Amino acid sequence: MKRKVLIAIADGVGDLPISELGGLTPLEYAKTPTLDKLAAQGSSGIMDLVKAGVPVGTDMGHLMLFGYKTTDYPGRGPIEAAGIGLELFKGDVAFRCNFATIDEKGEVLDRRAGRIRDNTREIAQAINGLEVQGVKVIFKEATEHRAVLILRGENLSDNITDTDPRLPDRGLSYKLSVPLDDSVAAKRTADILNKVLEEFHKILENHPVNVERKKENKFPANFILTRGAGQVPDIDKITKRLGFKGACVASESTVLGVANLAGYDLIVQEGMTGNLDTDVRLKADLAIKALETNDIVFVHLKATDLMGHDNNPKGKVVAIEKFEEMLTYIVDNRSDNTMIALAADHSTPCERKEHSGDPVPILLNGPSIRLDRNDKYNEIDCAYGGIGRITGSDFASIIFDYLEVTPKQGN
Amino acid sequence: MKRKVLIAIADGVGDLPISELGGLTPLEYAKTPTLDKLAAQGSSGIMDLVKAGVPVGTDMGHLMLFGYKTTDYPGRGPIEAAGIGLELFKGDVAFRCNFATIDEKGEVLDRRAGRIRDNTREIAQAINGLEVQGVKVIFKEATEHRAVLILRGENLSDNITDTDPRLPDRGLSYKLSVPLDDSVAAKRTADILNKVLEEFHKILENHPVNVERKKENKFPANFILTRGAGQVPDIDKITKRLGFKGACVASESTVLGVANLAGYDLIVQEGMTGNLDTDVRLKADLAIKALETNDIVFVHLKATDLMGHDNNPKGKVVAIEKFEEMLTYIVDNRSDNTMIALAADHSTPCERKEHSGDPVPILLNGPSIRLDRNDKYNEIDCAYGGIGRITGSDFASIIFDYLEVTPKQGN
Repeated sequence: MKRKVLIAIADGVGDLPISELGGLTPLEYAKTPTLDKLAAQGSSGIMDLVKAGVPVGTDMGHLMLFGYKTTDYPGRGPIEAAGIGLELFKGDVAFRCNFATIDEKGEVLDRRAGRIRDNTREIAQAINGLEVQGVKVIFKEATEHRAVLILRGENLSDNITDTDPRLPDRGLSYKLSVPLDDSVAAKRTADILNKVLEEFHKILENHPVNVERKKENKFPANFILTRGAGQVPDIDKITKRLGFKGACVASESTVLGVANLAGYDLIVQEGMTGNLDTDVRLKADLAIKALETNDIVFVHLKATDLMGHDNNPKGKVVAIEKFEEMLTYIVDNRSDNTMIALAADHSTPCERKEHSGDPVPILLNGPSIRLDRNDKYNEIDCAYGGIGRITGSDFASIIFDYLEVTPKQGN
Repeated sequence: MKRKVLIAIADGVGDLPISELGGLTPLEYAKTPTLDKLAAQGSSGIMDLVKAGVPVGTDMGHLMLFGYKTTDYPGRGPIEAAGIGLELFKGDVAFRCNFATIDEKGEVLDRRAGRIRDNTREIAQAINGLEVQGVKVIFKEATEHRAVLILRGENLSDNITDTDPRLPDRGLSYKLSVPLDDSVAAKRTADILNKVLEEFHKILENHPVNVERKKENKFPANFILTRGAGQVPDIDKITKRLGFKGACVASESTVLGVANLAGYDLIVQEGMTGNLDTDVRLKADLAIKALETNDIVFVHLKATDLMGHDNNPKGKVVAIEKFEEMLTYIVDNRSDNTMIALAADHSTPCERKEHSGDPVPILLNGPSIRLDRNDKYNEIDCAYGGIGRITGSDFASIIFDYLEVTPKQGN
């Protein structure tokens, strides 16, 4: 029977000892009998997505998990665009965006407009389709507070700065974009972007959805913060290169974007929220079903990362137990020929509220896997597993070799 | 007293849990008190010849063990030629060949002519020395069903396809060689090769050795399959570069080829078969003797790999116990200044019947080696050894540094 691989990603799951959890990491603290059983009957290790001590974004982390090189990185904007099905054409510049809240002085009151989830489509439609200095503006909402902006026109460049001030989430002013080189295109693109964002603000400030939000004491989505400018990705579909079929069950546009660029079918449904309340049973169901017609199925849980960013250790424990629940259903329903691989795209330690360069625990379970001595899935025990310490690229090669599609070197 | 190193290679020894062996790997299952004692009094680890999850050929695996880079790879043909002492000149194209059996429609009945071992010299002599379109044909038998073909003439290229259809071993037709680029040389070489193979077939079909084989119901060696076209290798002798003396005790032409290119003396004798019946006591004797006048001695056992390719777990156990026997004799007779290193060129899991990207166990034993906590030589226990997980290039550097010939970086 042909082998299959299910790869389950708990986004940002890696963490550090937390005093609130008695000095344990959330993975050590959470009740995870299924994950531990998978460890006991498989091989474990730890993984640096790119290199020890180097933090990576969700985009770069997933690029590695899907089998690419760091030099393949196309920028976050094009990945997000691919994630929501927006096609990029040569010359376009794409940006990853947040719906955000600013005050009258341009100070950011909330980088995520109170983690807005409702009516973002209405807001996006209100600003989509503008034209500024002959450049067409395409704007589309993604998951929750996330969105994508594309500038389409002559002589544009992606070599410009972000307008998102990043951390801390509140208190800084948004930044004007500036060119990163001396070209006319970079200067022109930064100028146009700044004008576009000003136009957006004018339209959004009094948009009915925002008027309503203010009444309800919610942060209005009255501004768009941009980052990760990038142009058409120049990477091949790895499914085609190696000759296999893949599908990705995820709700987050970044993950879906990388999966789309990699040639995976995207599986998204209502009920998958990219948050703690996501329907993990639905995800498990869709993954099991996708395994019938695919060689590799990715299934992704975002909530672990969010809880890290929010410095919410107990929330992260709950998210991990959601992951456990999803895996329990998958384990109970997988066929005998299926390897289950657990991994993460990076660590997001609660205390840092950001991604860190700490390695993540990984695990391989299924037929034809060497059995090591580790029987727990967490950052510490997996460091004593038989796989040792590998990179994200190694992980991808191991998965592909399991399907016997990794090209042999020599003869 | 000057240090010496004996490197013992069990080709393709790495494997996976096998139900026929109670869920153990052949190395775990085999009785190997000597190998385990070497582990107990040394340091162990696991090794990816090139990179985790990337399967390599015997040629590439040995290229790494002998201290080269993947970019030094000259193609299999030139390695095989070096292995049987055929010198290549600039412009020659060399191919690795199999004696094979085809039917009248060109379908491959057996890729190895029933693993022919006898009278291959006679067959080779019958087709050696032809001339086709001004190109001289040099053909020489190697171990068992293996042989080497060299085309010598003007304007030849190695950028052409193989005629060997590879797996499955039976049922496919042999392929006509086609050029891999638009050059006149590639087209010309492919055409000439196809004509040469046709000529070979005409001569071999009714060759007395084959008439006899057919009578005995054996597969006749009536065709030559080619692969791994390559030209003069552009690599330096590492013995000369680093300034040491090396010798290689092996019967397989691929290993001897890499050793020859690396500047090692080749030690081959009757009784060394490259199979289960090889005389391991003879090999051990020759290795011990070679250590008197060399700094590094390689000793190689092929049978472990063959048993993997044949999906013969019990046979692989027997082969490993042959390796144990060889090492027991070596350990009993080595002098005090000799390090023994155990390694492999790749894993060949029985269930896959092909090389895999799984790491191989390694071990260093002798004076001036750190002692770790591992006391068994197999895929699982060595993963818990003090060396950790390293690459083939790392392994070679460690060996050279033991002799203090690895160039120091910095000052």
